[in-house]
Amino acid sequence: MSLLDSLPERVHVVEMLPRDGFQRLDEFVPTDEKVEIIDALSETGVDEIEISSFTHPKAVPTLRDADEVAKRITRRDGVTYRALVPNLRGMERAVEAEVDKVNALVTVSETYTRKNQNRTREEVLAEMDDIVDLAHDHGIEVEAGMGTSFYCPYEGAIDPAETLAVVDSVVDSGVDEVTLATTMGLANPVEITERFTAAFDAHPGLDMGLHLHDTNGMSLANTLAAMAVGVDRFDASVCGLGGGVVLPGDMSGVGNTPTEDLVQMLERMGVGHGVDFGRIEAAAHDVSDRLGLGLTSHVLAGGTVEGVLDTVAADQEVD
Amino acid sequence: MSLLDSLPERVHVVEMLPRDGFQRLDEFVPTDEKVEIIDALSETGVDEIEISSFTHPKAVPTLRDADEVAKRITRRDGVTYRALVPNLRGMERAVEAEVDKVNALVTVSETYTRKNQNRTREEVLAEMDDIVDLAHDHGIEVEAGMGTSFYCPYEGAIDPAETLAVVDSVVDSGVDEVTLATTMGLANPVEITERFTAAFDAHPGLDMGLHLHDTNGMSLANTLAAMAVGVDRFDASVCGLGGGVVLPGDMSGVGNTPTEDLVQMLERMGVGHGVDFGRIEAAAHDVSDRLGLGLTSHVLAGGTVEGVLDTVAADQEVD
Repeated sequence: MSLLDSLPERVHVVEMLPRDGFQRLDEFVPTDEKVEIIDALSETGVDEIEISSFTHPKAVPTLRDADEVAKRITRRDGVTYRALVPNLRGMERAVEAEVDKVNALVTVSETYTRKNQNRTREEVLAEMDDIVDLAHDHGIEVEAGMGTSFYCPYEGAIDPAETLAVVDSVVDSGVDEVTLATTMGLANPVEITERFTAAFDAHPGLDMGLHLHDTNGMSLANTLAAMAVGVDRFDASVCGLGGGVVLPGDMSGVGNTPTEDLVQMLERMGVGHGVDFGRIEAAAHDVSDRLGLGLTSHVLAGGTVEGVLDTVAADQEVD
Repeated sequence: MSLLDSLPERVHVVEMLPRDGFQRLDEFVPTDEKVEIIDALSETGVDEIEISSFTHPKAVPTLRDADEVAKRITRRDGVTYRALVPNLRGMERAVEAEVDKVNALVTVSETYTRKNQNRTREEVLAEMDDIVDLAHDHGIEVEAGMGTSFYCPYEGAIDPAETLAVVDSVVDSGVDEVTLATTMGLANPVEITERFTAAFDAHPGLDMGLHLHDTNGMSLANTLAAMAVGVDRFDASVCGLGGGVVLPGDMSGVGNTPTEDLVQMLERMGVGHGVDFGRIEAAAHDVSDRLGLGLTSHVLAGGTVEGVLDTVAADQEVD
């Protein structure tokens, strides 16, 4: 039996740049430019866009314009606009902003939770019921975004039992979806397979996603492993820009998986995804140019069938 | 059923730097330095090393010292020393050099074959019987290394029927192993699965390997897909240095998969490989320093669990 027998027909691609990417930059991207970029991303065919984070402006100053961004973007039919909410106060702002969905953050690592949210994990989980109730009262979907589901920069490897305990807790709170995040980009395909399998075994039919970072270069292999066990939603960021705000030291390598690289793999494999590859490639070039990022993905560097053949053709004209 | 049910217990890692890497450089690496690097690689635990290419010195001047390299390296027990041979003349030199194994090159693409070997594919395949006979007369194993098994820089996508036809031909010639090469680094996990499955179906029990390039970033996903259908030998190059000598234009992105990234994935997944990860990591840093390559792999850039935790610890001391 091969991999191909268990691939999903269609997966959902979630664009994280406006939250995971912009939060990682030192510079504040002007609201006008954020809106332009999000509106362009809305035209690429991605199913969801995480537009910002309703966190305290002092905690993540680069996303202090979250409410304004939510107000000014053009909502395109068929695209789910979601935002990160770290607590009930954030959920209240999300209601005001009329997003379609929230990414309710909980991190499995106790140490990371204290540093990132200044609370215990128990306190964060205890608030989840109220977040879900408030969201559902307003027709907003809730995804529990589980940071440090595999590795923590402070605690190292996370015990799978801890990850499953948090899945159990958020499912009890009534969330609609659960996403395991490789916050450190250090997970491998066996860990991906085992943790998702454990979650599906405990909660058959649970709607699960994978939030991808690529520190170790295994994120597309992890995508493959996840699809093979039934995961059909993947968070990525154009140009691979992204990373947690409390990552220590020079963690510039902890980027997200580039959306254009993820989409290229899905496209070439024949897995449905709804994205127009040419448009996401163009969006990546545009974002790279605007933010001066350079060639931070394989697609940006010309690593596509068309890119390679174009290079060949240009070379042969010179010969 | 998940991926994990079909993973091999143990795979073979083949180090390609001395051939695929050194041929790609503009500068000639002095023979002394080549010998030092190969001897260091012999201590890492890799099963095989492709030490050079017995091609015409004018065709690949950077490997013109192949005979000398073969003579001067220290042969370590348990390591298979192999060399590329593009034709019968190369095979004769390989016999003189007393290598353990040869990588008998054939490229599926007719256009690439003409440019690279200045012959038709039929001519190359016709010579394979004599190469195998000569090799076996001297107790030398023969692997058919099938370049452009998926994509060609001149012809684009290669018809799977063409790839299978070449497999059939080299098996008829009596080769011991067959390796499909993603020369352009553009293959995806579905193509990997399908072409190996077709070859195994036609030749049950055939010993097959995958030669990895990473232009599209899918090479570790391809490794996973290949392992899932029974491939247990993988060609990689420390620092990812490598690429065909007749690749056109600025194809600097067509690197091999870095051995250290491949080994890290196998190690973290618990797939046996025989390599000492610390030693291959050190070898990669050494080669990168000697050749001034920079941080060309995820491992070199610190993308390991230990690398990340070390960065954190250093940062916390500063706090």
